[in-house]
Amino acid sequence: MRRLPIGIFDSGVGGLTVARAVMRRLPNESLVYVGDTARVPYGPRGAETVTRFALQLARFIQAQRVKAVVIACNTISAIAPEAVRAASPVPVVDVIAPTVATAAAATRTGCIGVIGTVATVTSGIYPRLLGQARAGVETLQHACPMFVPIAEENLAEHQVADLMAEEYLHGFRETGVDTLILGCTHYPLLKRAIGKGVGPDVRLIDSAEPTAEALANLLAAADLLSDGPARYRWCVSDPSYKFLQIAGHFLGRRVEPEVEAVTLE
Amino acid sequence: MRRLPIGIFDSGVGGLTVARAVMRRLPNESLVYVGDTARVPYGPRGAETVTRFALQLARFIQAQRVKAVVIACNTISAIAPEAVRAASPVPVVDVIAPTVATAAAATRTGCIGVIGTVATVTSGIYPRLLGQARAGVETLQHACPMFVPIAEENLAEHQVADLMAEEYLHGFRETGVDTLILGCTHYPLLKRAIGKGVGPDVRLIDSAEPTAEALANLLAAADLLSDGPARYRWCVSDPSYKFLQIAGHFLGRRVEPEVEAVTLE
Repeated sequence: MRRLPIGIFDSGVGGLTVARAVMRRLPNESLVYVGDTARVPYGPRGAETVTRFALQLARFIQAQRVKAVVIACNTISAIAPEAVRAASPVPVVDVIAPTVATAAAATRTGCIGVIGTVATVTSGIYPRLLGQARAGVETLQHACPMFVPIAEENLAEHQVADLMAEEYLHGFRETGVDTLILGCTHYPLLKRAIGKGVGPDVRLIDSAEPTAEALANLLAAADLLSDGPARYRWCVSDPSYKFLQIAGHFLGRRVEPEVEAVTLE
Repeated sequence: MRRLPIGIFDSGVGGLTVARAVMRRLPNESLVYVGDTARVPYGPRGAETVTRFALQLARFIQAQRVKAVVIACNTISAIAPEAVRAASPVPVVDVIAPTVATAAAATRTGCIGVIGTVATVTSGIYPRLLGQARAGVETLQHACPMFVPIAEENLAEHQVADLMAEEYLHGFRETGVDTLILGCTHYPLLKRAIGKGVGPDVRLIDSAEPTAEALANLLAAADLLSDGPARYRWCVSDPSYKFLQIAGHFLGRRVEPEVEAVTLE
C-alpha cells in the first residue's frame, strides 16, 4: 500500500506546479499525473461541464491504483471537490483548503485578495472558507482569464504579462490587501508580473507548497509514507498538446520524454 | 428539402463571424449553429483530437436534418475536411477553399501572408492550396495563439491586442506581402489591431464573405435556395460558457436568448 503512487490530476498542465512541490517535499513518493490536455482550460466553463470532466479524471486516477489523490487544479477544487471525494475511496487533498489556512495565518490587515479563473471566482469558495478560517477577514476577488494563455504561451516575461497584471490587479492597491492568493495553478509562473501589479508590500500565496505539506501530513498520519524509490508517470488526453514544452517551464526540470496518451471520456 | 436549414459548426464562437455573413448574404435561409463550447479552443490540440471532435460535430449537425453544412472553423477545415465530408451526405463548404481563391485573385505581388492557430499553420494547407490556385505564389505563415483569448475576452480594442499584433505581425512588413489571410474565424474581430500590425498597404482577407458566397453559389447550383422565412437555432455543448455575451460581439446583433444545450460526445 505504501509503495502505491499518489495520483495528481489537473485540467491540463497547471497542476505541474503542484507536482513539482510534491516531488520536492516527498522525494520518495511515486506519482501518476494526468492532465486533460484534450479539453483544457476548464476555467471558462460551467459547473456542470467541469464536474463531468472532473469525475472522468477521478475515475481514471482511481483505476491506476493510487494511495491518495491530489486535485491539483483550483477550478476543479472550487467546483467539484465533493463529487471527486465521493468517487475516490482513498484520501483526497485539494489545493484550496491548505492555501486558505496559509493565507488566513499570514494576513496582518485581515484583508486578503484572491485571483483565479472565472469559474473559481464565481464559485465564491475562497471568501466562504476564508471567513470560516478566520472571523472578520475581508476578501477581495478578481478573475484573471488572460493569465492562463499567457503562462501557456511562455509569455510570463513578456510585456503582455505586465500589461494584463496592471489591468487585473491595480484595483487591489490601496485596499488594505496584504496577502494575495494565487488561486490558479498556472499563476506561480507569473509571480514577477503579479508582484509588480499588486505592489511590493503584498505577500503572494502559492497553492503548491501548502498543498504538498497537507499531503505529507495526511500520508504521515495514515502511515502511508513510502521509502522509495520514486517513479513518475505523466498521462495526457491529447499527447500532441505541447505538454513537454510547457512541462519544462512548470516542473523546472525535464519530464521524462515518455508521455502516455490516455482516454478520459 | 429547400426549407431545411443550413448546418454551421465550429469549435466554439468564432464561427459566428461566418454565420453573420451567411445571414446577410442569404437572409431567407434557416440556420442551425453548433459550437463546442465545452471543449473550445481546438487550435492548440493535435490532429487526432481535432478530428475526433470534428466528427462528433458533423454527426450532431447531420442529425438535425440539414441541406448543406458549413465548417465555420479554420482549424477543423485544415485538419479534418475529408473526414467531415465522408460523414456528411449533404454538400459541405469549408472556410479555407473560398478564402484561398479570394486571396489568390487579390494579390498583386504574389506574396500572401497567412495567420491562424498553431494547428492550422502546422497543417500547411494554406501554402499548399495557394500554390495550386496560382502558380509561383509565395506564402508566409505565422501562428497567433493569443488572438483567440484576446477576442473571447473582448480585448480587441485594448492595448494588449496591439502589443500582440506587433509581436506576431512585424515580420510581415517589408516582405512583399500585400494580402493577409485571417485564417481563424476569431480574427476579424481584431481587424483594427491586425491592420496596424501589418501596416496600411496590406489587404486583409476575412473567410466570412467568401464562404457565404461559396455557399450561396452551391445552393443556387443545386436548386436548394429557400424563399424563407429564416429561423435560427444556436446550440452549444456548454450552455454556461459566455456564449451569449460573446455572440453579441461576433454576430453584431443579439442572438435570441434561447441557447440549446447539446451533447456531442
